[in-house]
Amino acid sequence: MAEDKYVNGVNVDQLMRTIEQIKNDPEIARFRFRATNRWVEGTYNRATIKDFYGACREDDTRSPMTFEIDEPPLLLGADRGINPVEYLLIALSGCLTTSLIAQAAARGIEIRGVQSRYEGDLDLRGFLGISEEVPVGYQNIRVYFSIEADLPEEQKEELILLAQRYSPVFNSIAKPVPVSVQLDGK
Amino acid sequence: MAEDKYVNGVNVDQLMRTIEQIKNDPEIARFRFRATNRWVEGTYNRATIKDFYGACREDDTRSPMTFEIDEPPLLLGADRGINPVEYLLIALSGCLTTSLIAQAAARGIEIRGVQSRYEGDLDLRGFLGISEEVPVGYQNIRVYFSIEADLPEEQKEELILLAQRYSPVFNSIAKPVPVSVQLDGK
Repeated sequence: MAEDKYVNGVNVDQLMRTIEQIKNDPEIARFRFRATNRWVEGTYNRATIKDFYGACREDDTRSPMTFEIDEPPLLLGADRGINPVEYLLIALSGCLTTSLIAQAAARGIEIRGVQSRYEGDLDLRGFLGISEEVPVGYQNIRVYFSIEADLPEEQKEELILLAQRYSPVFNSIAKPVPVSVQLDGK
Repeated sequence: MAEDKYVNGVNVDQLMRTIEQIKNDPEIARFRFRATNRWVEGTYNRATIKDFYGACREDDTRSPMTFEIDEPPLLLGADRGINPVEYLLIALSGCLTTSLIAQAAARGIEIRGVQSRYEGDLDLRGFLGISEEVPVGYQNIRVYFSIEADLPEEQKEELILLAQRYSPVFNSIAKPVPVSVQLDGK
């Protein structure tokens, strides 16, 4: 058997095989991701990631990874971790980057480097219940990409459009996602 | 001067002073959070958090914190970090927890412990461009809270409602946020 072809470090042959498998059996495409969180003190809490479900089976092979979450002193914390809205920008950054690289790889476009920066505006009057008029969440988020590749500007523009279109986190933020919150065991 | 009062590790007096200051000058409430990301290889990239703007000034006091982002082998990665949609659940977990604790603190309600777990359903046919009908982002997210406190069930229910209402990340996911993506320097 010939070796798999890689573009941008992405195994394009595995990607194409996965797409064919899913076309035959959409159940393979159903994933369930999970996190747990334990409050420590004040604005300080800790999240853990371990198992997930996907491709018709539970995956429990990863060691647990923990993440510290806190606020800066200005927001009543002690910087024992970065804050939740910063984790949201990390999620967005990882997803847009991977989405861009995968779209380029699927088209055989070689990329040398990708950097991006993220800015999100938040008006604390929402969180603090001071105003009902300002959004509680981010008012808006701006993303700026730098792509190193032998490509005309318009093809770079097309790549960042594709990155958005097929990014799960971008679409989870730009479009509403139903989130249900309840007491455990109810 | 009397010492500040703490509830659940939250400086409630500082919280109330902040609210009064913001009522007098809403500019204090305007925050801007930031992240940067650099692609490494394939599905592997790295995000960095450092500075932010808030309370009318730049804050550059924190050391840079980096976060590794990758996919499991099943999704063409090598587990060099957790994946973007898992970071989204971390963001949500930290925000709902802090929001719940702050709302309880503001009402003088003492909490002994809070744990929560998160499940998000994702159909990869969106990301892979196989179906235009399934959402590219999370189809839905379920959150389950356990609260240790001397409170009747209905007051715990009220706390998880308040946590959602005033959580910036919850509102950034449950409601649409405008996200603009462009090439840097354009």
